[in-house]
Amino acid sequence: MTNKGQILRLLNYKNLLKHLQSLGFKKVFSDNISDTLEISSSLVRKDFGIFGITGNRKGGYDIDSILNKIDEILGKDEIQRVIVIGVGRIGEALMSYQGFIKEGIQIVAGFDIDSKKINPNAQIPIYPIDQMVDYINSNNIRICILSVPQMVAKHTVDLLQNTTIGGILNFTPTKFQSTPEITINNINIVHELENLIYVVNKQKEKTNDKV
Amino acid sequence: MTNKGQILRLLNYKNLLKHLQSLGFKKVFSDNISDTLEISSSLVRKDFGIFGITGNRKGGYDIDSILNKIDEILGKDEIQRVIVIGVGRIGEALMSYQGFIKEGIQIVAGFDIDSKKINPNAQIPIYPIDQMVDYINSNNIRICILSVPQMVAKHTVDLLQNTTIGGILNFTPTKFQSTPEITINNINIVHELENLIYVVNKQKEKTNDKV
Repeated sequence: MTNKGQILRLLNYKNLLKHLQSLGFKKVFSDNISDTLEISSSLVRKDFGIFGITGNRKGGYDIDSILNKIDEILGKDEIQRVIVIGVGRIGEALMSYQGFIKEGIQIVAGFDIDSKKINPNAQIPIYPIDQMVDYINSNNIRICILSVPQMVAKHTVDLLQNTTIGGILNFTPTKFQSTPEITINNINIVHELENLIYVVNKQKEKTNDKV
Repeated sequence: MTNKGQILRLLNYKNLLKHLQSLGFKKVFSDNISDTLEISSSLVRKDFGIFGITGNRKGGYDIDSILNKIDEILGKDEIQRVIVIGVGRIGEALMSYQGFIKEGIQIVAGFDIDSKKINPNAQIPIYPIDQMVDYINSNNIRICILSVPQMVAKHTVDLLQNTTIGGILNFTPTKFQSTPEITINNINIVHELENLIYVVNKQKEKTNDKV
């Protein structure tokens, strides 16, 4: 399993199966999954084959077993420690996001340049940005969320190159390329909205044409 | 131009060209663009051809003209009014996000169920959720950001079906399918982080194997 599409499908399978489990389901068929996620059932079976998950045509797949297997594939046996770089509004919201911990993700620290934001005694401590590289290397941190202002984004990514960081989830508007050492996934909220606006405007034109 | 990849490329072209413009550049070559964005220069020329943007091998493309054309394609002649449904931490951060307005996107209102959050007199007013449908239809709102708790996400999307809303940017963990009436783009921050963690763990294994 190497591409992002497959991993995201895996996470979608997990979400759906947890939901079914909470409803009391024990077994699931590839058709149930494919209908709900709007993908082909042969793709579901192919993915499950790659993951080493087996089922049978008559009885379907055992939900508990699939979920255990997925957690194993995702390396969920240990808590993943993540830091937030740039504690502005978005960074602050992500630091206190409740959805992480139940997926085994723990935000362990934030970093900011603004002295008013520094608070080493908070439940999730916030340290000055010039302590960032030392903190990362001493604590062997591998993943960070980047939510600094755009003008310092490039400089911050440069600073991360010689650290233990292997992955950056980038919320700044600058689109960064991954390097052999660091995988960078970019989330550009403005682009997502602009894309949606474009699609909706096209739909409206089409509807107007019909009238 | 119909697929999401093309629109997102268009937005990346715009970002890059604005940056070059701020540095004093007047002209750009497809090779400059393709190198920076790590796509082939023939794809850049193909996109520009589809958009009706022309240049020449000797002089390159005129940056001002491309930017005007892109704004025209994106329908940037009018301000796009967007509402935020669910003013929790993420919703609050998005309501005050500074990056929207310079792209012609204005957050015009927020909606929440919590009476402590309601404030019709704020710079961006926050209204009770039961006024949402009326507000949307009276103001002909077409785009919303969904940042409600997961347990009310489905119900909220159902409420939006018979409104003027044509696009939802969904930040809840529930993955929604688009309908013929409403395009729904899902941003799942937990999945993005889980995906990154998976990739980084794989990298680490590979490095350890080599040692």
